[in-house]
Amino acid sequence: MTTTLIDVKDLDAIAIGAAIYGTGGGGDPHIGKLLAQRSIRQHGPTRLITLDELDDDDLVISVAMIGAPAVMLERLAETSPLIAALRTLEAKLGRKAAALFSAEVGGLNSVIPFSVATELGLPLVDADTMGRAFPQLDMTLCTLQGISAMPLSMADEKGNTLLLNTVDNVHTERFARSITMDMGGAAYSALYSMTVAQAKRCLVLGSITMTRRVGQALLDARTRHLDPVAELVRATSGFCLFKGKVTDLQRKIDGRWSKGMASIGGLDEFEGQSAELLYQNEFLMARTADRVLCTTPDLIATVDMETGEPITAEQVRYGLRVAVLGLPCVPEWRTATAIGLVGPHCFGYEVDYKPVEQLALDR
Amino acid sequence: MTTTLIDVKDLDAIAIGAAIYGTGGGGDPHIGKLLAQRSIRQHGPTRLITLDELDDDDLVISVAMIGAPAVMLERLAETSPLIAALRTLEAKLGRKAAALFSAEVGGLNSVIPFSVATELGLPLVDADTMGRAFPQLDMTLCTLQGISAMPLSMADEKGNTLLLNTVDNVHTERFARSITMDMGGAAYSALYSMTVAQAKRCLVLGSITMTRRVGQALLDARTRHLDPVAELVRATSGFCLFKGKVTDLQRKIDGRWSKGMASIGGLDEFEGQSAELLYQNEFLMARTADRVLCTTPDLIATVDMETGEPITAEQVRYGLRVAVLGLPCVPEWRTATAIGLVGPHCFGYEVDYKPVEQLALDR
Repeated sequence: MTTTLIDVKDLDAIAIGAAIYGTGGGGDPHIGKLLAQRSIRQHGPTRLITLDELDDDDLVISVAMIGAPAVMLERLAETSPLIAALRTLEAKLGRKAAALFSAEVGGLNSVIPFSVATELGLPLVDADTMGRAFPQLDMTLCTLQGISAMPLSMADEKGNTLLLNTVDNVHTERFARSITMDMGGAAYSALYSMTVAQAKRCLVLGSITMTRRVGQALLDARTRHLDPVAELVRATSGFCLFKGKVTDLQRKIDGRWSKGMASIGGLDEFEGQSAELLYQNEFLMARTADRVLCTTPDLIATVDMETGEPITAEQVRYGLRVAVLGLPCVPEWRTATAIGLVGPHCFGYEVDYKPVEQLALDR
Repeated sequence: MTTTLIDVKDLDAIAIGAAIYGTGGGGDPHIGKLLAQRSIRQHGPTRLITLDELDDDDLVISVAMIGAPAVMLERLAETSPLIAALRTLEAKLGRKAAALFSAEVGGLNSVIPFSVATELGLPLVDADTMGRAFPQLDMTLCTLQGISAMPLSMADEKGNTLLLNTVDNVHTERFARSITMDMGGAAYSALYSMTVAQAKRCLVLGSITMTRRVGQALLDARTRHLDPVAELVRATSGFCLFKGKVTDLQRKIDGRWSKGMASIGGLDEFEGQSAELLYQNEFLMARTADRVLCTTPDLIATVDMETGEPITAEQVRYGLRVAVLGLPCVPEWRTATAIGLVGPHCFGYEVDYKPVEQLALDR
């Protein structure tokens, strides 16, 4: 049983780790971090707990933003719509949450629950539903365990709230997407309510601590003047897939999705080669002309070659010198059923999934 | 205090009256009538009551379909999604409805609550929110009394439900419209929950009985070989604005709105003249080349010249010989505030409202 007190400076490390595990999507955690740090300054440290601190029949709920990352970042300024979403869901359930958790350990949603938990005096569970970020509500290990995001509440800054109870994920996505557009491209949500017993079955445990450790590794590398990319590879048990300069960008906003491709001309040991990064909110595939380097559900993170600073898909721009990292996903994502939910084919890429370790060996 | 038992054949008269008061929109009540008659055959007559049969703090709720009339008619086949919408709203309120009522006395929604009330053994209140049909959720006398359609539940045939709690009508319309489109163009709803005390302030009382009387007048005219148009004018205290043959039609579907214009070449005493009917779901303005004949909120009903059968805006077609009737709306719609909510300017028509009686005198 562990309770860790998370203070203002801990959030710096967590936000960097969350940007790595956001795999280019999920929104830059920076704004969410500032909001969480403001809450901690006002109310004291966030209590980060393990699930065994709670009773098995206690209720845990996630709060998150839904929408296009660029819009989410512009909109996030206060916790009140998140609290409104939480209260709407609690009213529906007739129960209060004993603790909150992050829907995604990657991106903005990893840090958003820190603010709400801290302001409400609730603990935050050291866990998330996927060990990374994914662009759809239902792309979680919970779905694989038959635990639904429903009922799901949504709220906006104006005081509008609504509660969705859909029969399947297709309808969840459709309704939530429409309302998100109606709410201006981003919305505040409470979802994935479950008992602690259920959470023990389906959440990725310790994932907040993991992002904190990875973020801290980068901060330490800078202090000690070590190669930040090498330190990130070591801390994540990942691979450096490619290094190079961004030579081309294709982007479009499609509904609440941000889709595109970045082309990279190789540098250093990758001189003379080129690679492409394909993304739909998150980076989902990295490939060279003749080889796949890494695909979803393994993680693709892009960082600045010199500083190791994570770069989101939105931030990629011509001329940036980047290192592309490949990180193994949690083992639960590597079953055939899981690949059917989040594998490359689910995003329209006509390649079969192979673990990033195996692709690295094949090179 | 009155309870009237509404049997299968009473629905025939009510549905005809509802088609007249639907003013061309709201969907042909025919399908809704068949559904109500099936419910009555299975469960016995609908108990139509006056509000003084209930306690002032009893809860009353309306059930209705939302969407484009043409889609509503294709979709309506069972009461279960309406009951799901009602139960979702009741769960939110933590109270059961003591009685149901019709949101609109015109069109399909006038008869839909008969089925649900009958199946659930609930009485139906002899009242509605507007004394006609209007194309927007908030275009009701309730709005003028500060009584909101919120919270509003929506459901579809697949088992999806949602609950909206919006801060104003702009958001209600926006969210409900998106979800209606997502639900395939039509949705089932429960809305305008209120106490009987509130209902007494804002509903049009006796409006179901009114449609029944008007429908019966048409049925009697046919039995007795009287002029059906003249009998309808008499029964509605209305005016025959125009008679003629439909010579042109312009139509478009704009979101969940059905918009258009019908041109009519005069016959009989209107020979040599021409008129236009403008509609947005409902007929909202009738005019000749140089004169306005009738505008919203007064009612414009189009009926077959020979049979008196009501013709919806969707059913208008080239060559039909029609009589255009103008009916005075309830006096509550004639205040400046009410005209600001449902007058011609609200639909983009650049004319000022004048009561249909006054326009008839001006001719």
